[in-house]
Amino acid sequence: MDREQLMDEVRRQMPERRWQHTVGVMRTSIALAERFGADPGKAELAAILHDLAKYWPVEEQVRAMREAPMPPGFGADDLLPYDAALLHAPLAAHVAESRYGVKDPEVLDAIRWHTTGRERMTLLDKVVCLADYIEPGRDFPGVERIRRLAETDLNAALVAGFDSTIAYLMEKGKKLFPLTVLARNSLLDEMATAAGEQ
Amino acid sequence: MDREQLMDEVRRQMPERRWQHTVGVMRTSIALAERFGADPGKAELAAILHDLAKYWPVEEQVRAMREAPMPPGFGADDLLPYDAALLHAPLAAHVAESRYGVKDPEVLDAIRWHTTGRERMTLLDKVVCLADYIEPGRDFPGVERIRRLAETDLNAALVAGFDSTIAYLMEKGKKLFPLTVLARNSLLDEMATAAGEQ
Repeated sequence: MDREQLMDEVRRQMPERRWQHTVGVMRTSIALAERFGADPGKAELAAILHDLAKYWPVEEQVRAMREAPMPPGFGADDLLPYDAALLHAPLAAHVAESRYGVKDPEVLDAIRWHTTGRERMTLLDKVVCLADYIEPGRDFPGVERIRRLAETDLNAALVAGFDSTIAYLMEKGKKLFPLTVLARNSLLDEMATAAGEQ
Repeated sequence: MDREQLMDEVRRQMPERRWQHTVGVMRTSIALAERFGADPGKAELAAILHDLAKYWPVEEQVRAMREAPMPPGFGADDLLPYDAALLHAPLAAHVAESRYGVKDPEVLDAIRWHTTGRERMTLLDKVVCLADYIEPGRDFPGVERIRRLAETDLNAALVAGFDSTIAYLMEKGKKLFPLTVLARNSLLDEMATAAGEQ
């Protein structure tokens, strides 16, 4: 399946508005990859696929998750007590591999961790996760600050992205997914190490 | 050692300003204990002792921590990568037991977890932790909202307290201590369960 066919496949699984978001993430992922030295082709592929399962009915997402191998702590029953919106990222990685033949573990990881982050994120993980925060269609409190940081500092921008998620969840009285906090801590450690080496 | 002697002991280990904070936490802990059905005598004892090591030199805190048995993940080397200010709580529990003969595990736990919280906090844990946020000398953004919640809802008030800590740490670009996030999640689960049972 070539990239155009893959895009058509993904587009058919979501509302047009979400497809436009996906296009925004594709373009932003390519730009960030070029800016920070990741592979633009891999960034684009991960971006095309990152939300493929987001508009599947939740019960279908749960069923597909239960039949698929998932990382420890990342099964449907681990994620559902936090938010059903967490399911679509690891599920998309599984579908990308099993249905669309994506084999590149870097691309699959960038899809898998695009919502929650993880400790020691790869460059490609960071690019796709940050693009999802700042693609041109996004509009939320603080997004302009994240976009500004993304001009020069991938880690600081992503910390600001996670900060906005954490602040939003606190505002709504919702639980915080622990891995996102660990991802943020890990980025701050990386920034401190880099600062110490300068 | 009677309670007056114990208060003198603790008072000698901190600046007068911090002793006034301790007196505030004592009074507030007693009031919260009476309001929410905890033991006021235990709440007062935990409050007297909660900050006893806070003004020890950090290197002395670290030395004492290294010589003492600590819960898993709560040794000096686990806490220091987050904030040296986390040391004083588990250290105070150790000193309360080993030097001042406090044997009541509820009181020791309320001292030990008063800064970070923990999953499944006891009623006494909550009372002392919340009193530390809202004693009359405290003044930080949001404290009035926490005080209002504390009139009627111990869990909601403590969630608001942890929210203020998390927001402060994000504002400062500091790492979040994972146990505090787990403590907050645990309180939200408790609140959801209680709401479901009504």
